[in-house]
Amino acid sequence: MTAGALIRELEDVLPPGAVVTDPTSLAAYRTDRAHDPSAQAPRAVVRARSTAEVQTAVRWAAKHHVPVIPRGAGTGLSGGASGRSDALVISTELMRDVAVDERTRTVVVQPGLLNAELKAIVAEHGLWYPPDPASFAICSIGGNIATNAGGLCCVKYGVTVDYVLGLEVVLADGRVVRLGGPLIKDVAGLDLVKLFVGSEGTLGIVTEITLRLLPAPPPHRTIIAWFRSTEDAAEAIAEIACTIRPSMLEYMDRAATNAVEDMLGLGLNREAAAFVLAASDEQDPEGREIAFMLEALRRHHPISADETAAERGAELENARRSAIPAVEVNGRILLEDVGVEIPKFAQLVHGIEDIAARNQVAIPLLAHAGDGNTHPLIVFDPADAAEEARAIRAYGEVMTLAIELGGTITGEHGVGRLKRPWLERQIGADALELGQRIKSAFDPDNIFNPGTIFKEVHE
Amino acid sequence: MTAGALIRELEDVLPPGAVVTDPTSLAAYRTDRAHDPSAQAPRAVVRARSTAEVQTAVRWAAKHHVPVIPRGAGTGLSGGASGRSDALVISTELMRDVAVDERTRTVVVQPGLLNAELKAIVAEHGLWYPPDPASFAICSIGGNIATNAGGLCCVKYGVTVDYVLGLEVVLADGRVVRLGGPLIKDVAGLDLVKLFVGSEGTLGIVTEITLRLLPAPPPHRTIIAWFRSTEDAAEAIAEIACTIRPSMLEYMDRAATNAVEDMLGLGLNREAAAFVLAASDEQDPEGREIAFMLEALRRHHPISADETAAERGAELENARRSAIPAVEVNGRILLEDVGVEIPKFAQLVHGIEDIAARNQVAIPLLAHAGDGNTHPLIVFDPADAAEEARAIRAYGEVMTLAIELGGTITGEHGVGRLKRPWLERQIGADALELGQRIKSAFDPDNIFNPGTIFKEVHE
Ligand SMILES: Cc1cc2nc3c(=O)[nH]c(=O)nc-3n(C[C@H](O)[C@H](O)[C@H](O)COP(=O)(O)OP(=O)(O)OC[C@H]3O[C@@H](n4cnc5c(N)ncnc54)[C@H](O)[C@@H]3O)c2cc1C
Ligand SMILES: Cc1cc2nc3c(=O)[nH]c(=O)nc-3n(C[C@H](O)[C@H](O)[C@H](O)COP(=O)(O)OP(=O)(O)OC[C@H]3O[C@@H](n4cnc5c(N)ncnc54)[C@H](O)[C@@H]3O)c2cc1C
Repeated sequence: MTAGALIRELEDVLPPGAVVTDPTSLAAYRTDRAHDPSAQAPRAVVRARSTAEVQTAVRWAAKHHVPVIPRGAGTGLSGGASGRSDALVISTELMRDVAVDERTRTVVVQPGLLNAELKAIVAEHGLWYPPDPASFAICSIGGNIATNAGGLCCVKYGVTVDYVLGLEVVLADGRVVRLGGPLIKDVAGLDLVKLFVGSEGTLGIVTEITLRLLPAPPPHRTIIAWFRSTEDAAEAIAEIACTIRPSMLEYMDRAATNAVEDMLGLGLNREAAAFVLAASDEQDPEGREIAFMLEALRRHHPISADETAAERGAELENARRSAIPAVEVNGRILLEDVGVEIPKFAQLVHGIEDIAARNQVAIPLLAHAGDGNTHPLIVFDPADAAEEARAIRAYGEVMTLAIELGGTITGEHGVGRLKRPWLERQIGADALELGQRIKSAFDPDNIFNPGTIFKEVHE
Repeated sequence: MTAGALIRELEDVLPPGAVVTDPTSLAAYRTDRAHDPSAQAPRAVVRARSTAEVQTAVRWAAKHHVPVIPRGAGTGLSGGASGRSDALVISTELMRDVAVDERTRTVVVQPGLLNAELKAIVAEHGLWYPPDPASFAICSIGGNIATNAGGLCCVKYGVTVDYVLGLEVVLADGRVVRLGGPLIKDVAGLDLVKLFVGSEGTLGIVTEITLRLLPAPPPHRTIIAWFRSTEDAAEAIAEIACTIRPSMLEYMDRAATNAVEDMLGLGLNREAAAFVLAASDEQDPEGREIAFMLEALRRHHPISADETAAERGAELENARRSAIPAVEVNGRILLEDVGVEIPKFAQLVHGIEDIAARNQVAIPLLAHAGDGNTHPLIVFDPADAAEEARAIRAYGEVMTLAIELGGTITGEHGVGRLKRPWLERQIGADALELGQRIKSAFDPDNIFNPGTIFKEVHE
């Protein structure tokens, strides 16, 4: 069959407009926010409006052995939704239904709704969906499920998987399967719901999600501290993280702070080595958590450590959330997501400083420090091939360093295609092979997202 | 090879005393606390003292196609650790090492340690391991992992899986694999840790566990309420569960309360239809959660609803925890673990009352009501074959009812061997088949716990 006939066969079984093939539109589906230069525009995109349309597209792909790349909002940072010219992208961006059930405090939502939209909708019912990736305004719930997204509040409130009760998934043979449901506790059979969460589109396409919700978030109080040294900040962070349960514990280094200050002009301290943003939402008028955090921070020789007014706290949170786009102003970035045990935080940061110096690239760093999860952002000028090569080398070295420290190459963004070469070294050949057995059992023809997490070709 | 020679081959590769074969000792490994009458004493038990001994035993079993039944403390309620005469039981009861790491607020523990022992050890460090099955004094951490055990505090603090960061597992071919580790956030590869939690010994034997801990539990305040009707209690429970986050929300019906009262003599109300025990550990001197719960309970016509003094609260918690043994005094029991969405709680309870009446058996009921998870206890006289037959019929009818209400056959005890016949009806043929694919991919010869969750024989 010619390429054109193949696409016409797909168009024939889907509603008009569902299949996108014009090059201008396809270009928008070439990369995710990792901006992998080797990504290619896909051969076509299906913008599904229903589970049935996803099924139809998957069946077509399975029949013709066309790789399928599931895609939400394309804000991923590991190249997991990057295109390739032989592949069909199945985008869930138009699947946006949502229904809140106050009586069970759950919500059933299609994958295309954005995280911020979901938060707003449940807030109208006085409820809260906690997971809050910094990208919450632009990323989809489906993508959050597929990557097990984290965020700022997860140091206390957990990550996406902690809120997922049920899933509807389209499998590699086009079957739909429903897993879990609205029940809070259910241990009937292997936990396939949690297996699909974080599987990065390699096992199936998520078409509906049941999430548990919490009561509206309690008000919180915020502390900002500035330090002259990484060690001092890291020691204070470690002390806080192992003693209480802050509702936020974030970090930026000097370079990240300066990038944010350049963009937002908030009067941040440009000289300090480290910025620490901490919050407590404990409903204690004595404010014991806040007092403890101030003490812990002040014990470690800060430039300053103070509680902020509520509006300033919100500004600073926004500053932290803006760090990635702020750094992106200075060049293209290779985005790391490495994590270590919190006591090794300073060691990781210094190791990254060495890597930056050795490779002559800037690596501003931000972190969900209370979880030990850091984002070193390797900045380079894409017009400078030599610098790009040094940046790529540094990218590998940072992951190698994390692995040597007993850490992870990815705390929340996923392995995608870009970190796959380092995965085996972290988790070991046996664990990788167990995962591969599941992949092969669920998707024997390797239709779904080949090259993400697992090898390009099954062996 | 003769049966004797087979066992001698095993004895030869393990330390003296590790292999148990005398009939008196074997009898203790015949059933778990489900007391399945069809269970058989195993052909031998290995009481492993190390991961290496578990490996040795598994390799022997794999070589000779001997089924392996992993076993912790044998307090399971689904027949998941029940013996069979052709099988080797591998018991982890002697693997009891434990090491707390305050700096990362984690603990590394071998599976044989009891839940209560672990709680006590981490408490010495000012820390808390929340999951608290009512059996916490007698069940092992390994069994908790394998069943994803719940408990009283999990309505607020989650179940076992929410605390498991890493596992060491012996696979069906005798390999050891380490999954996850002490990192709070790590999304590198499929989440095999969470897949093993709740897999009931069907995928491997857990030999070491890394758990995350919390700061010492905050003090809590307790409310006891008595109701004339199930509906009133259920309505109040539903209102509480969808509005705030109580740290405990438990329920007993009249029959369960009377059994406890017979045993403990605590002055419980023998006439009330329903007992509700609620707690809040919110650190709010205004006590808004307690006030809200009292209001919600009082709005629904209780006989009484009051805050209790701390010691009385502890007594009542103990009363709730003692309900299963208290009912067991009255006969043998078939233990259900069915759950529904909380708004359907009263419907489930009344349906069970009908089943009890129709089958002329007593079915006292207790519940982790805040999670919608109930334990109807079907009581029968094992000497009365007709009654036993009616009890067995009721056992199936209760699960069928839960499934018809969109609920689960097991909220926390696991499928084991006893609930397997109902599993497909709940989760569907497709989900079961996906689980089966994982089972076959991990354990192609079906060595581990055949008949638990999955069919006796792979097809
Ligand atoms: C400025 C910025 C800040 C960020 N901050 C955070 C943060 O704090 N925490 C965090 O965790 N992430 C963060 N991210 C990364 C990103 O937003 C998350 O990974 C998010 O979950 C991706 O969602 P998406 O809808 O954009 O998914 P996509 O990028 O479209 O896809 C991500 C992966 O999921 C798969 N996928 C998408 N939808 C489905 C589906 N329906 N079924 C199956 N597979 C699917 C894709 O194949 C791909 O592998 C940030 C990104 C940016 C740009
Ligand atoms: C009075 C009473 C009250 C109870 N209350 C609760 C409650 O509130 N919540 C709750 O969840 N449960 C409760 N239970 C049930 C039981 O205590 C739990 O299921 C517990 O987790 C079982 O632990 P165990 O060590 O006794 O496991 P076992 O009974 O020995 O085994 C249970 C299952 O786990 C497997 N297994 C055990 N160890 C391992 C291992 N190391 N590796 C792999 N597989 C393994 C077994 O094969 C079996 O399938 C209660 C039981 C009793 C008797």
